[in-house]
Amino acid sequence: MSAIDFRTEPSRYRHWRIETDGEIAFLVMDVDPAGGLSSDYELKLNSYDLAVDIELNDAVQRLRFEQPGVRCVIVKSGKDSVFCAGANIRMLGKATHAHKVNFCKFTNETRLAMEDASENSRQIYMSAVNGACAGGGYELALATDHIMLIDDRRSTVSLPETPLLGVLPGTGGLTRVTDKRKVRRDRADVFCSTEEGLRGAKARDWRLVDEIVPPSKWDDAVRARAHDLAQRSDRPAGAKGIALTPLARQMDGDRISWSHVEVEIDRARGTATLTVRGPSQAVPSSAEAAHALGAAFWPLAVARGLEDAILHLRANEASIGVVLLRTDGEAKAVLDHDAFLIAGRDDWLLREIRHYLKRVLKRIDVTPKTFVALIEPGSCFAGTLAELVFAADRAMMLIGTREGDNRQPAAIALGEANFGLYPMGNGLTRLQTRFLGEPETLDTLKGRIGERLEAEAADELGLVTFAREDFDFDDELRLMVEERASQSPDALTGMEANLRFAGPETMETKIFGRLTAWQNWIFQRPNAVGEHGALKLYGSGVKPTYNKERV
Amino acid sequence: MSAIDFRTEPSRYRHWRIETDGEIAFLVMDVDPAGGLSSDYELKLNSYDLAVDIELNDAVQRLRFEQPGVRCVIVKSGKDSVFCAGANIRMLGKATHAHKVNFCKFTNETRLAMEDASENSRQIYMSAVNGACAGGGYELALATDHIMLIDDRRSTVSLPETPLLGVLPGTGGLTRVTDKRKVRRDRADVFCSTEEGLRGAKARDWRLVDEIVPPSKWDDAVRARAHDLAQRSDRPAGAKGIALTPLARQMDGDRISWSHVEVEIDRARGTATLTVRGPSQAVPSSAEAAHALGAAFWPLAVARGLEDAILHLRANEASIGVVLLRTDGEAKAVLDHDAFLIAGRDDWLLREIRHYLKRVLKRIDVTPKTFVALIEPGSCFAGTLAELVFAADRAMMLIGTREGDNRQPAAIALGEANFGLYPMGNGLTRLQTRFLGEPETLDTLKGRIGERLEAEAADELGLVTFAREDFDFDDELRLMVEERASQSPDALTGMEANLRFAGPETMETKIFGRLTAWQNWIFQRPNAVGEHGALKLYGSGVKPTYNKERV
Repeated sequence: MSAIDFRTEPSRYRHWRIETDGEIAFLVMDVDPAGGLSSDYELKLNSYDLAVDIELNDAVQRLRFEQPGVRCVIVKSGKDSVFCAGANIRMLGKATHAHKVNFCKFTNETRLAMEDASENSRQIYMSAVNGACAGGGYELALATDHIMLIDDRRSTVSLPETPLLGVLPGTGGLTRVTDKRKVRRDRADVFCSTEEGLRGAKARDWRLVDEIVPPSKWDDAVRARAHDLAQRSDRPAGAKGIALTPLARQMDGDRISWSHVEVEIDRARGTATLTVRGPSQAVPSSAEAAHALGAAFWPLAVARGLEDAILHLRANEASIGVVLLRTDGEAKAVLDHDAFLIAGRDDWLLREIRHYLKRVLKRIDVTPKTFVALIEPGSCFAGTLAELVFAADRAMMLIGTREGDNRQPAAIALGEANFGLYPMGNGLTRLQTRFLGEPETLDTLKGRIGERLEAEAADELGLVTFAREDFDFDDELRLMVEERASQSPDALTGMEANLRFAGPETMETKIFGRLTAWQNWIFQRPNAVGEHGALKLYGSGVKPTYNKERV
Repeated sequence: MSAIDFRTEPSRYRHWRIETDGEIAFLVMDVDPAGGLSSDYELKLNSYDLAVDIELNDAVQRLRFEQPGVRCVIVKSGKDSVFCAGANIRMLGKATHAHKVNFCKFTNETRLAMEDASENSRQIYMSAVNGACAGGGYELALATDHIMLIDDRRSTVSLPETPLLGVLPGTGGLTRVTDKRKVRRDRADVFCSTEEGLRGAKARDWRLVDEIVPPSKWDDAVRARAHDLAQRSDRPAGAKGIALTPLARQMDGDRISWSHVEVEIDRARGTATLTVRGPSQAVPSSAEAAHALGAAFWPLAVARGLEDAILHLRANEASIGVVLLRTDGEAKAVLDHDAFLIAGRDDWLLREIRHYLKRVLKRIDVTPKTFVALIEPGSCFAGTLAELVFAADRAMMLIGTREGDNRQPAAIALGEANFGLYPMGNGLTRLQTRFLGEPETLDTLKGRIGERLEAEAADELGLVTFAREDFDFDDELRLMVEERASQSPDALTGMEANLRFAGPETMETKIFGRLTAWQNWIFQRPNAVGEHGALKLYGSGVKPTYNKERV
């Protein structure tokens, strides 16, 4: 398969339409059967593959940035008799294990982005389910705040993955049924093991949908509900969006660059060095000036570049196991931008950017690669960019300077941004998670906001894993990279997935932890992917043969 | 392999000794290399297999019931230079996937039983680590409340599973490091990816152990610490334990019976019918009388039989996918026993029994089989036994009576026991978990305590999945069993593991959810179990060859 590109824009969409009508937008799913990532399968019945989800991710993002006046987004189908048939099963049957896992991760992030839009951008998502809504289709609906189902005796919601395919509704389905919609567990059991799903009053009474509406009243009821939900929004009236201009990216062999982000791959070592560059311009003079900068405004440009870099490494560079995180620039310029974002907390665009940065950092938390922050002279791990240190599995800091380098010794600078702006999926900040065992340290750290914390101080405060002088630093790094390369990639993935999420769990961490891990297990089992497994045989007319052992 | 028997007693132990000295007991691990479940491997260096853990489970249990005067339990090694080398790797390399998963589940339950003993029986566990303490050995220490490490320059703690074996420290290791001991995540990463582990001051400073002691002061310091911990205990001085007499069990083909529990297996249908019989005797006249009954006291006899039945079905009947739960007896007699247990909340034995019942019910929650409660005339799903209804994936209740049966229609009776006595691993009662979406229902239910709730009422209150009349009942059950038998056992396991645990997560649920699921995934991956995988090649001198893809 050629490299997967996560960048797109509405003019290139083949599967979705955004139809805006004042404070309401319809996000219309109308999948082009021939528009999948591969020609091995047809995307019938509004089923989807990663190509469809890349557009959805883009659409959700653009609605937030480009259409600030939209207060309610209605997800609906552009087909006659089907809402969405879920992930394409032929695609799942043919995909490699790695692709399946990566696909599920991205779709999960997109569903969570919809929930984040409802909660934090106050663009409230609802779904208008007309026609069959099965599997991933219902999981899409589950990610909206309100589900309307037409009561036409044929439209159903269902999660037929277990009975039909021998896998789980793994895009949050099981977790949202129990934890978001709080469906009683025995009913959830019946629902999830029944191919045909539920319709009408029973679907509502079991909490699977929020309301049912007869066909004669459908269109009016959907619009009325949308206007109703729109009242909960604080989106500004008459605000003008900013354009998410095409994201420029240069690929030059193993060096890829965006405006403020660069990735350099070392295939022999199995590493990628990801460098984020600090602001080259001063902070805008006003919120209006930031709006005028639009996609060129540094925090937004960084978020976009960093996100694309992470997604690219995940999807297209599976054999690169270690990502070295670097920064380059002035700490003060980063902290100034942070202060500007925080001061503008009531501006819709600055709020969007903060939440976007939060989501990009969360993508790192669930990326199956080892992240090592390298804090050296010339770096600007301050405020927002210091989050990279706390998102990393390890952080190494150089004590002093290198011969011939007359820059100041490296320093970390904490900012307000590190104390609440970017919660992880577990609901805690990265510093709270890091210092779960010594919460008093958080107060100490707050007292050091804005200081240049050089290596010894940063080490003393627990902000870095090692502080080393020149020679030892390079040696330690080399050994670490070699060690990582010698260990089982699977065990490392499992280890990191556990160690990164200390403390409380939320619906989000349950989806990426419990649900995803079980699904990945099933995706390895002969009962699903073996020659006689359900995923392999689906559509062939041959019934799967299961090993009956319950494990 | 012949059937695994979970019943044992100290006179038959080959791997552990209990040495009691007043308020302190030493639980000494001294594994007989030839005493494993199979002769395929030798249990060198205090490494363990299920045989060793079955004894540990028995020892923890007997200390609680037979030695009420013990206030602190010191886990130590009977070998000279090794504390415990962890799970035996040859065993893991040769075991089937199902056996590995089952082994890990049982060891996890045993570690949790130690923590439950510290917290709720106030027999406080500590570990005295003298010698190498690796992998599952350190996980054993992690399950104690206090870890002492001898500071002799050679004794270490380590979790070398990832670097050495390509698997996870899956017996709670990763979770207890982050969530119980709250080790900083980057240090946890270093620790868990380093074969040799840590010793001395660094192990203490990184929170991996609680204290280090020089060899010259070791014995005194261990005893002093134990007496110190014993002060936290509320165990009665001078109380006399009760004997956990050998658990009688009769096996007659596919029918197995204990004093108040019976299992009947129908191999053609893939079901086991598990019947629990209510009390045949009246409630004892006093706590003393209950002590005199000892292991014959109904709640204790039921707990023992039910536990052995569940463990037997898990370990020896993997192909039985559905367990039908029945009861037989008088609801009033069950509720009377509950009231007796609750009234005796200050009696050490009655407290033990309540916590034991709690643990047995939790074993059901993590058993990979579908549980269906069948509530029919003659049953006694009341109070403690009603928990079986709420632990089940589904509950079916017969409306009215069957022809020719002149008993009363079936009824469920709620009791105080259902509102706090038996929390699940997530910290909520089964009713709280069930009604997460409608907490007000809990108040309604409390108002109905003690009532005979026949089918329509129970259905109306949400206590059962279906209420059906005679003919429909049998039909529904037959269809359900057939449906279950036609679905992927793996998908069902994953589905149930998600649907049973709505709401909050705790360290315990993180271990059985997130950690276990990742471990099970890794246990299926070629990098661990393939021909060139780390588990397969361990000890052969050949290095594993890994597929470098990070998934």
